[in-house]
Parts: sequence; C-alpha cells; structure tokens
Amino acid sequence: MPKNGAINRERILDAAQHLVIENGFAATSVDQVLKAAGTSKGAFFHHFDSKVDLARALTERYVTADIGHLRTALDATASISDPAERVVAFVRHFEDSAEEVMSAQSNCLYVAVLTEQQLVSNGTADLVNHAIEVWRKEIADLLTAAATSRDRDLGDVDALADHVFVTFEGAFLLCRSTGTPEHMRAQLGVLRRLLATTLGTA
Amino acid sequence: MPKNGAINRERILDAAQHLVIENGFAATSVDQVLKAAGTSKGAFFHHFDSKVDLARALTERYVTADIGHLRTALDATASISDPAERVVAFVRHFEDSAEEVMSAQSNCLYVAVLTEQQLVSNGTADLVNHAIEVWRKEIADLLTAAATSRDRDLGDVDALADHVFVTFEGAFLLCRSTGTPEHMRAQLGVLRRLLATTLGTA
Repeated sequence: MPKNGAINRERILDAAQHLVIENGFAATSVDQVLKAAGTSKGAFFHHFDSKVDLARALTERYVTADIGHLRTALDATASISDPAERVVAFVRHFEDSAEEVMSAQSNCLYVAVLTEQQLVSNGTADLVNHAIEVWRKEIADLLTAAATSRDRDLGDVDALADHVFVTFEGAFLLCRSTGTPEHMRAQLGVLRRLLATTLGTA
Repeated sequence: MPKNGAINRERILDAAQHLVIENGFAATSVDQVLKAAGTSKGAFFHHFDSKVDLARALTERYVTADIGHLRTALDATASISDPAERVVAFVRHFEDSAEEVMSAQSNCLYVAVLTEQQLVSNGTADLVNHAIEVWRKEIADLLTAAATSRDRDLGDVDALADHVFVTFEGAFLLCRSTGTPEHMRAQLGVLRRLLATTLGTA
C-alpha cells in the first residue's frame, strides 16, 4: 500500500507539525501525535524510527516548503525590470500573504527546532541552515543587482539578506508573545519601508 | 537564613536559566537544575512551588535585566543632542556589547518561554509582553523625536520600534541555527545602517 502509506505519513507529519509548533518538541509525545493523526503506533514506527527521526522529517518538509515560498516570491517578481523595485515587491509579496501564514500557525517550526539542544546537536538544525543559506544567496543576488542599478552602498549584503530571515523569525516571536498575528504584516512592512528608503525607491 | 536563602535562590535561577536557554524548558528537569545548582530538592521547593513557578521567576528576572539593558543604553546616549544621531548611537551601544551577550548565552530565554504553550497560556508570556511594551514605548519616543527633528515620515513608529526586539530575537535564532554568534553584531549593524539611512544621518 505505498499510496496509503504516503498519505498516512503526511497525516502524521501534519499532526506533529501542529503540535510541535504549538507546544514545543519536548512537550509533544508520540502518543499525542498518534491521537491527533488518528493512527497506530505500528503505523508511526513504520514511517519513523523515533521521535527525533520524526523531527528531522518534519524539518525537511518545512524547509522544502519554505524554499518553495522563496521561489514563488522570486517568480512572482521576475518580470519587474528595475532591480530595486523588485526587492521592494519581493518583500511586499510576503506582506500580502502574512495573514494567510499566521492563520495557519502561531509560530515557526524553526523556533521549536532551534530551542531543543538535541535537535541543534544532532544535525536537524543543519536543515534550517540550508534554508537560511538558500534565502541568503537569492536575496543577496537581488540586493546586489539593486545596489548596482541605483549606485548604492549596502554594506554587508549577506547580512542585509539575512535580515529577511531575522525579520520573519523575530516577528513570529512577537506575534506569539502578544497573541497578535497582525505584527507579522507590520514587521514585513517595516522591512519593506527600510529597504525602499535605502534603495531609493521610496 | 534570609541571606543564604537569597543566594541559594539566585544560584538555582542561574543554573536553570542556563539549562532552559540551552535545552528548552520541557527538556529541563528539576533534577537537572538541582544537580547543576548543587542544591537539594528541599531548598528548591522552599523557593519555588513547581517547575512552572521556576519558569515564571526566571522570566521575571530576565525581563528586569532586559529592561535594565534598555535603560543603560538610554542613559549612555542621553547626552547626544541630535535625536537622529541618538537613535543610531542607541543601536550602536548594543552592537558594542553583542560579543559579550553572545558569549554568555546561545539563545534568548524569551525564545524558550514562547516555544512552550503552557507558559504562553499561563501568563508567563505576559511578562515578555511587558518587556516588549517598555522597549516599544521608549524607542518610539526616540524615533518620534528623530523624525520630528529631521522632518521624516517613519510610517508606523510603534512597528519600527518593535523592529529592535524583532532584530534581537531573529538574530538569536540565526546565531543558534548557524552556531555563529557573530551574526548578532552583524544584524544589529544592519538595523543601525537602515535606521541611519532612513533618518538621514548616514
């Protein structure tokens, strides 16, 4: 039953992702995941060797989706010929999907993963690093093109590119702490305005 | 023994803070805290009713220190008469202490607290909100003075003020994920440059 097996695996991952994002990894038991997914311990251990293996699979899937969101935003802005305007539109793309993102989850899985030393130590955080590096590279390319076209000095372009990740993660924590998901759009708006002024499009 | 009692309480909090920041709250047991603090279960329960009570005390102490860092930066820059230059110097103050902060801890206690739904639900996160609100108010005042003096429109000043918290928290996660504490100074530098350009001091 490869097809049903794959469906079952996704259902377990969906249930686990929700629980881990809401409650943290250590506070989520395999039994809670089984109950939420409506599946058996046998089915779980058919797909995952352990809870740590589940965390790795969850993170892999989340990283793939995360890089997918990046590619979608790059594609959606690819036709903008002014590189500085493209940077601003790239951030605005995420602003426009902020409510959708925040209605689906109250935090970022990366926060839950990075809080757990065992996941940082066992290589699961390396998957997050991969996402960080892909985002950094693509955004640094956008910023470099914009800086060249506008003759601006952006300083450390890699660090400025990383500031997109930093804004997302920091805004997730601000939303989570205050219980106000609207902060995600507001913080992406702050980032867009700061970049627009720096690139001279504002 | 009130004096020894207070010392013991601080020692338990120090040990717990290190463990919770490194490993997360749910992954930290009271036994681990006792071992690291070199104290007895009796001494622990003399000071704290439960592990959740410990989390609350930890967060209270951390928030007090956090607001103390804010006040120190405000005091250190109070003599700067140009409000826009003061904003830039305020961020630079934190850049200059970034290595010191990151050598003492690999993450922010707020990240560990906000990952745990039980701490978000039981009011511990409200303590974090208090810190967020104090930072927002003080920085918004600095920004408003700077915007007025330079005749700049900063958009949503409260959101821009919150971007300082967002940068700190996002940078902690970037440092933690990559194992590279230098990202803290770099991200604060990005924030300073963006604000300097926006305020016209660069």
